[in-house]
Amino acid sequence: MTISYNGAKYCGWQIQNNGITVEECIEKALSSVLGEEIDVVGAGRTDSGVNAIGFIAHFDSEKTQLLDQTAKVIYKTNAILPEDIVVTDIFPVAEDAHARFDATSRTYTYYVHTHKDPFAKQYSLFYKFPLDIEKMNKAAQYLIGTKEFCCFEKLHSGNNTSICNVKEAYWEKYTPQTGQISEEGYYKFTITANRFLRNMVRAIVGTLLEIGRGKKDEQWIVELIQNKNRTQAGQSVSGHALFLTGITYPYNTANNKDK
Amino acid sequence: MTISYNGAKYCGWQIQNNGITVEECIEKALSSVLGEEIDVVGAGRTDSGVNAIGFIAHFDSEKTQLLDQTAKVIYKTNAILPEDIVVTDIFPVAEDAHARFDATSRTYTYYVHTHKDPFAKQYSLFYKFPLDIEKMNKAAQYLIGTKEFCCFEKLHSGNNTSICNVKEAYWEKYTPQTGQISEEGYYKFTITANRFLRNMVRAIVGTLLEIGRGKKDEQWIVELIQNKNRTQAGQSVSGHALFLTGITYPYNTANNKDK
Repeated sequence: MTISYNGAKYCGWQIQNNGITVEECIEKALSSVLGEEIDVVGAGRTDSGVNAIGFIAHFDSEKTQLLDQTAKVIYKTNAILPEDIVVTDIFPVAEDAHARFDATSRTYTYYVHTHKDPFAKQYSLFYKFPLDIEKMNKAAQYLIGTKEFCCFEKLHSGNNTSICNVKEAYWEKYTPQTGQISEEGYYKFTITANRFLRNMVRAIVGTLLEIGRGKKDEQWIVELIQNKNRTQAGQSVSGHALFLTGITYPYNTANNKDK
Repeated sequence: MTISYNGAKYCGWQIQNNGITVEECIEKALSSVLGEEIDVVGAGRTDSGVNAIGFIAHFDSEKTQLLDQTAKVIYKTNAILPEDIVVTDIFPVAEDAHARFDATSRTYTYYVHTHKDPFAKQYSLFYKFPLDIEKMNKAAQYLIGTKEFCCFEKLHSGNNTSICNVKEAYWEKYTPQTGQISEEGYYKFTITANRFLRNMVRAIVGTLLEIGRGKKDEQWIVELIQNKNRTQAGQSVSGHALFLTGITYPYNTANNKDK
């Protein structure tokens, strides 16, 4: 299934003891619609407050009639779900397909604006310094490849390895369709990797912003990666401007249609 | 001066007894920055909850040094203003220029989406029926011209005349830059007139949506205008999806740059 959610009110995807999560909302709604207890397995975690468009999850169901009635199940599930979570598709996959283990890459997008903007602030970070997009793009190129990224990992994350293969990382200017109040100053960062460490995208964005405002130069990011020390990287930026925007699989998913 | 604001938390532009308005926030901030009591005159009222991009207002100031320091005044004013109101420009005009009386037209934009969308809902109306954009555009053409629009006026508005000259009125499909979760189902209505009656845009949108979903045909809007009876038109739609997006003057304003 594909799911989109505005994460502002949720403690991320994965079920937690200390707050409401997207996963539990989906499980409750689907269980009620299908009349059986449904466990969903998501493609990954998103942190508290982070958004997703085209998030992928899988579940097993006894109800084979589901196959002919997905539109109805989607409609009913969405009617139960809160307004900020929406199931966009449900489709059959091979019995051994796994939303998390089979995913070959994830793409995140981060939005930043440098002029005070009453509309963009809902999904974008207001950064009060002008940004040099060329410098940020040069620095982002040093992320590409298979490297140890422990300098951007949240401390005590307990991962076995901090090696990730970053496939693309770049900044673009963009124009908001709604509520554009300034002719410039809207930036969008896209990063794709086989996997991400906890907090990694937000620490990378914080680091690139310090380079973009001229406080550090492009080489700084090379040193950070070499030094493998989290405390030296830029500050992790707010989750409200972070979107998980794509997950790829070796097989076709509805999500891939939009890519 | 040009101002943009997210109207969600405000009782419209104009100062009211029963709630906080954009006008009073601007007056307080400017008075504090300039050290003199400032009265601003806006180009028009916007209703409670309605947004504006490039709203125009004028004020008189004793401080002639303001002319050389507008960037500084804008910066300081924005630092005082709440996050959802922003002054985008201040520029000198002729002594007799008047933001309201001189305005020759106003443009409003209204956003509608027909799929549940956790991101669009903040500034767009969720409408649960599919829409026929061609029918809505045919019907919108009947609005063009100089007519009495009392069928779309809020009752007891106390206006002397309900004659408006509608210059353009059309629907477009659009693609949100952020948070697009469906391939279609995003619509944007633009209407320009020399003046608008209270509630007029929202009543027109409500009427066109009933035509778009097929409950009424295009001719209905012709009858409504002829019958001059407010109680027959479509229901007035929510203000959160309405944006005042342009005001024109016979002379140049910063606002015109974006048109």
